[in-house]
Amino acid sequence: MDLARHFGSAVRRQRNLLRLSQEELADRAQLDRSYVGRIERGEQNATLESAQKVSDALGVGLDVLFAVARDIATGRKD
Amino acid sequence: MDLARHFGSAVRRQRNLLRLSQEELADRAQLDRSYVGRIERGEQNATLESAQKVSDALGVGLDVLFAVARDIATGRKD
Repeated sequence: MDLARHFGSAVRRQRNLLRLSQEELADRAQLDRSYVGRIERGEQNATLESAQKVSDALGVGLDVLFAVARDIATGRKD
Repeated sequence: MDLARHFGSAVRRQRNLLRLSQEELADRAQLDRSYVGRIERGEQNATLESAQKVSDALGVGLDVLFAVARDIATGRKD
């Protein structure tokens, strides 16, 4: 299953759970806001290091984020 | 926890479980063998798309590979 394709949606879901704006998430992750936006829209083929920064900023592991991506890919809601 | 740093070790563990050589894994993943070698040694900041190709070639999801990376990071053996 192509979980990488749903990584951005998983990031958005976790960001919204934390009631963070993209700006706030980008600041925490020390990444450019537009880069975070492209990741969320699936327009950016992020590197593992950038994905790690985002997961750290969200306070969850990459294993958790990709498990959320699996839920999204299989249509499971919260 | 920096799981990205242990992604390469997780790939190697799964590859060895399947008794695949790096060459065979690279062929399956349609990636260059030296690229797969650098991923395993943690020398390559892979993209999510490349990580997805590797996980597909290993027959496991990225959520599983990062869960293995967590086990490695926390010192849990098989």
